[in-house]
Amino acid sequence: MGLVAVTWLNCLRRRLPQNTRLLHTLKGHQSDQILMSPALASLDLPDIWTPNSSCQSVPDIHKSFNEQTATVIDGKLMATEIRSKIADQVRQMKKGLGKVPGLAVILVGQRRDSLTYVRNKIIACEEVGMKSVVTELPTDCADADVQNAIMRFNKDPSIHGILVQLPLPQHLDEEKILDAVCLEKDVDGFHPVNMGNLALRGREPLFIPCTTKACIELLIRSGVEIMGKKAVVIGRSNIVGLPTSLLLQRHHATVTVVHAFTENPEQITSEADIVVSAAGVPNLVCGNWIKSGATVIDVGTIPVEDPSCEDGYRLVGDVCFEEVIKVASVITPVPGGVGPMTVTMLLVNTLDSAKRLFNFT
Amino acid sequence: MGLVAVTWLNCLRRRLPQNTRLLHTLKGHQSDQILMSPALASLDLPDIWTPNSSCQSVPDIHKSFNEQTATVIDGKLMATEIRSKIADQVRQMKKGLGKVPGLAVILVGQRRDSLTYVRNKIIACEEVGMKSVVTELPTDCADADVQNAIMRFNKDPSIHGILVQLPLPQHLDEEKILDAVCLEKDVDGFHPVNMGNLALRGREPLFIPCTTKACIELLIRSGVEIMGKKAVVIGRSNIVGLPTSLLLQRHHATVTVVHAFTENPEQITSEADIVVSAAGVPNLVCGNWIKSGATVIDVGTIPVEDPSCEDGYRLVGDVCFEEVIKVASVITPVPGGVGPMTVTMLLVNTLDSAKRLFNFT
Repeated sequence: MGLVAVTWLNCLRRRLPQNTRLLHTLKGHQSDQILMSPALASLDLPDIWTPNSSCQSVPDIHKSFNEQTATVIDGKLMATEIRSKIADQVRQMKKGLGKVPGLAVILVGQRRDSLTYVRNKIIACEEVGMKSVVTELPTDCADADVQNAIMRFNKDPSIHGILVQLPLPQHLDEEKILDAVCLEKDVDGFHPVNMGNLALRGREPLFIPCTTKACIELLIRSGVEIMGKKAVVIGRSNIVGLPTSLLLQRHHATVTVVHAFTENPEQITSEADIVVSAAGVPNLVCGNWIKSGATVIDVGTIPVEDPSCEDGYRLVGDVCFEEVIKVASVITPVPGGVGPMTVTMLLVNTLDSAKRLFNFT
Repeated sequence: MGLVAVTWLNCLRRRLPQNTRLLHTLKGHQSDQILMSPALASLDLPDIWTPNSSCQSVPDIHKSFNEQTATVIDGKLMATEIRSKIADQVRQMKKGLGKVPGLAVILVGQRRDSLTYVRNKIIACEEVGMKSVVTELPTDCADADVQNAIMRFNKDPSIHGILVQLPLPQHLDEEKILDAVCLEKDVDGFHPVNMGNLALRGREPLFIPCTTKACIELLIRSGVEIMGKKAVVIGRSNIVGLPTSLLLQRHHATVTVVHAFTENPEQITSEADIVVSAAGVPNLVCGNWIKSGATVIDVGTIPVEDPSCEDGYRLVGDVCFEEVIKVASVITPVPGGVGPMTVTMLLVNTLDSAKRLFNFT
């Protein structure tokens, strides 16, 4: 049995940048442990992707595409349609109850991309007539500071959704912080109970994570059949990859999750009818990764420095747009695809939360 | 947009045996719904598998196999080894604290297979020196009866693990009943918080479902590498398929979940290095479903009438053993594979629970 453990450890060692946790695992195996299975925490390795060099450089959706074949989903237009319905319902709620849904955002630090995301969310709230509050905390704040802010909003009856903008600075305990958000206001859907209920058939979470919900809504609105189709989700983050794979499966797709430890990801991806890429690696998904006629949803939104842009940077996706547009039948652009729909799903979740609380239909 | 909804519904209608929920969904689409995505509950379809007629009839592991190539994992032997370690620790706990771990089992009705499973669990507890209690309830009992039994065990300090034997009679609310088990005694790991924490990287559930834990322990003890390998899980039940796919992914396998709505399941399965079959369909997995040299874990345990057996029936697996043993490199038998390891993992979980409570190392 000692040999088996060593084989496993050697395999792990080859992939692991630092071996702190590894030593811990090894110690476990040498001790009086009953099982050989390692502790889950010891398995958590960073997903380090190798950027794809075979693609052209950073995609530029402003170019014109003479060979374009895929239909480009207009996420912005779809989002606008949905937001107008949300605004209607907020007006009705205000008229009927004298109340509006309220969203609280907690922002720690000054990450440029996070600032932009938070700003977009606040503007979206204003546009549909929702209340919004932002609590800004300094980068070096303590777990307790963030938790206290959450506790305040948990008790605030004018707040129906609480969102902690991720990623948090490294020194903060994300798990402890996210667990502090009360289940009924967890509009991001990241609480383990909501995630468990998304995974378990026969159950329904109070909230589905916004990006995941956006992907499925984009697929359904574009007439893409999900049931029985092969879907590949690239990336297995807790906030996108995982919940998206779970939701696609509940829609009866046959789902494969491709991650940084996957061998031949391009071959596996090229067999899929639906590809949702959420790796956060520019240009990862090239034309040869995609089956002809497949649907490609690009969740990647990587900020790339660009002095010509207002904010000093622009967002690029995981997908080499120029190449994939020639192969796929349906594709989302970055920006203008998943992004605006994600913010819209946040509004939907916050509205749903208020409707649930007020028993308003 | 109406067209899209109808396409989706038509697709659903083709697969759905009864259209009660469908009408509900359709109503949703016609009303003032903001989103086109259907409610998750409306998506829950039964997984009806078509039994495979190309295989030989029910497998018989008592036959001799001249062409055998695969190593047959001796789950019974592995289980015995682990149970002896558990017994040691129970003795130490008794000596040091004057206490032993205690398991409570709630059995509703008189299903023959359930009776056997419960009996095996109780015998296993006795063998390692653990306390065990069984509460038997009549088939026609109410949700509240089961919940009351659970509540009693939740409060009982001599009980460290509570297990509700599944499946429950149809009229009972499984969700409500399982949610009543307190998290710290949920040795089956079916509570949504434990499932969510199994799914979410960076988190660790208090308990991993026993069958899932058994599959991984069997793989690791057999020297099968998981990281980076292609794994196919056949079946997506809440109690086996789902948690097994999640745990394999946390071990860095590239996981595909095959279910009753999967097109060409045999083709997808035949690309896998590791196949875990948990569909509950005898003979589903034939030789042509398996890649040469793959590892096959058969979770299927379907009772088939057999008057020559003591209980009047015997258990058969999902896998056509005679065919697959010639193709695979490693295989588990039924019985004597996953079964004894599953019961052993229940003992491990109960012991862990007691150790956690007593802070006993």
